[in-house]
Amino acid sequence: MNQQPPDLPAMERLHQQIGFILEIDKLKLIIRRTLLIDQSRRENDAEHSWHLAMMALVLAEYAEPGVDIGRVIHMLLLHDLVEIDAGDAFFYDAAAEADKAAREQQAAERLFGLLPDGQGEGLRALWEEFEARETADARFARALDRVQPMLHNFHTEGGTWKEYGVTLDQVRSRRALIADASPQLWAYVDGLLVEAVRRGFLAEKR
Amino acid sequence: MNQQPPDLPAMERLHQQIGFILEIDKLKLIIRRTLLIDQSRRENDAEHSWHLAMMALVLAEYAEPGVDIGRVIHMLLLHDLVEIDAGDAFFYDAAAEADKAAREQQAAERLFGLLPDGQGEGLRALWEEFEARETADARFARALDRVQPMLHNFHTEGGTWKEYGVTLDQVRSRRALIADASPQLWAYVDGLLVEAVRRGFLAEKR
Repeated sequence: MNQQPPDLPAMERLHQQIGFILEIDKLKLIIRRTLLIDQSRRENDAEHSWHLAMMALVLAEYAEPGVDIGRVIHMLLLHDLVEIDAGDAFFYDAAAEADKAAREQQAAERLFGLLPDGQGEGLRALWEEFEARETADARFARALDRVQPMLHNFHTEGGTWKEYGVTLDQVRSRRALIADASPQLWAYVDGLLVEAVRRGFLAEKR
Repeated sequence: MNQQPPDLPAMERLHQQIGFILEIDKLKLIIRRTLLIDQSRRENDAEHSWHLAMMALVLAEYAEPGVDIGRVIHMLLLHDLVEIDAGDAFFYDAAAEADKAAREQQAAERLFGLLPDGQGEGLRALWEEFEARETADARFARALDRVQPMLHNFHTEGGTWKEYGVTLDQVRSRRALIADASPQLWAYVDGLLVEAVRRGFLAEKR
């Protein structure tokens, strides 16, 4: 009499997964600083994550040998999920960086904790790997996350570089984030930076 | 004297790929009918594509045996790119369906044609596979593309079902799009549909 139909636990598992899928809809509401290329508005984290995943697909050949593009794409799809709770942290804002790590760990706990046991841990491990930037997969993912706003800034005549007074020195000081993962991508981006200075999109020094 | 530095063709290839990446930023401007779950606005194609890719990652276990989730994710990332030129076609709008195929083929020609020879054809083939729905990978990708708006409609108290007077019969008439790819997902979704009718989110018949 107390026996449950055999498919109930399976349905409960799926229901929990759907709960996670509904919750992450909120990533579409987290607004970044970066402008869309048509300058009509700023982009949100969900469409940014899509754009990065497409970049990984198209630019795979510039990754270090042995990089698993499938894993890179998985990382990029979920790399900003913690911002649902922790908010977007602007790359050149040192003050916001201070308690960012603690807030993001708490967010990871809650969000990946919505998934069934085992599955949440796996996805969280991918996010931790992205953050740690110790594997070749994570290095490539992180590099793309740096390159995309540079492309947008160049093609919006300065974008957040101009808005926040970012200088060439500042951008180049984080050179390793791209160059370690892909010298070719860095060569391309550095060419853009030089051209950005020439066109007045980016200040050379403060 | 006419000799070019040896890296110029490689740089030209990368420049072409970046051109594609910049062009597809426009997917963020293509607005779908589906509401975000917080009902603040309609979603766009780029964030929708991200959401589907996350669904594939989380719901992989419900796919037919042998489905390659990496390929499914690639398909989902690019499945709506043609709408940059052809616009979003609402699923229950028969009139718009008429010349959709021709407009989308033209769009595919232009967009994938922005990529270097060889690469564009590969991505276009993935899109054609998604459209044809003949492989198990494509069936699963298409099923997720059907499930996501149903989740949104249920969790926005009817959403586009109510807005466009869609009935349970209409939704169930396309049952195979989900059930062929995953009986378990269909069982879950059909439960939602019954509950949607009970709550007045979805009309039973016209």
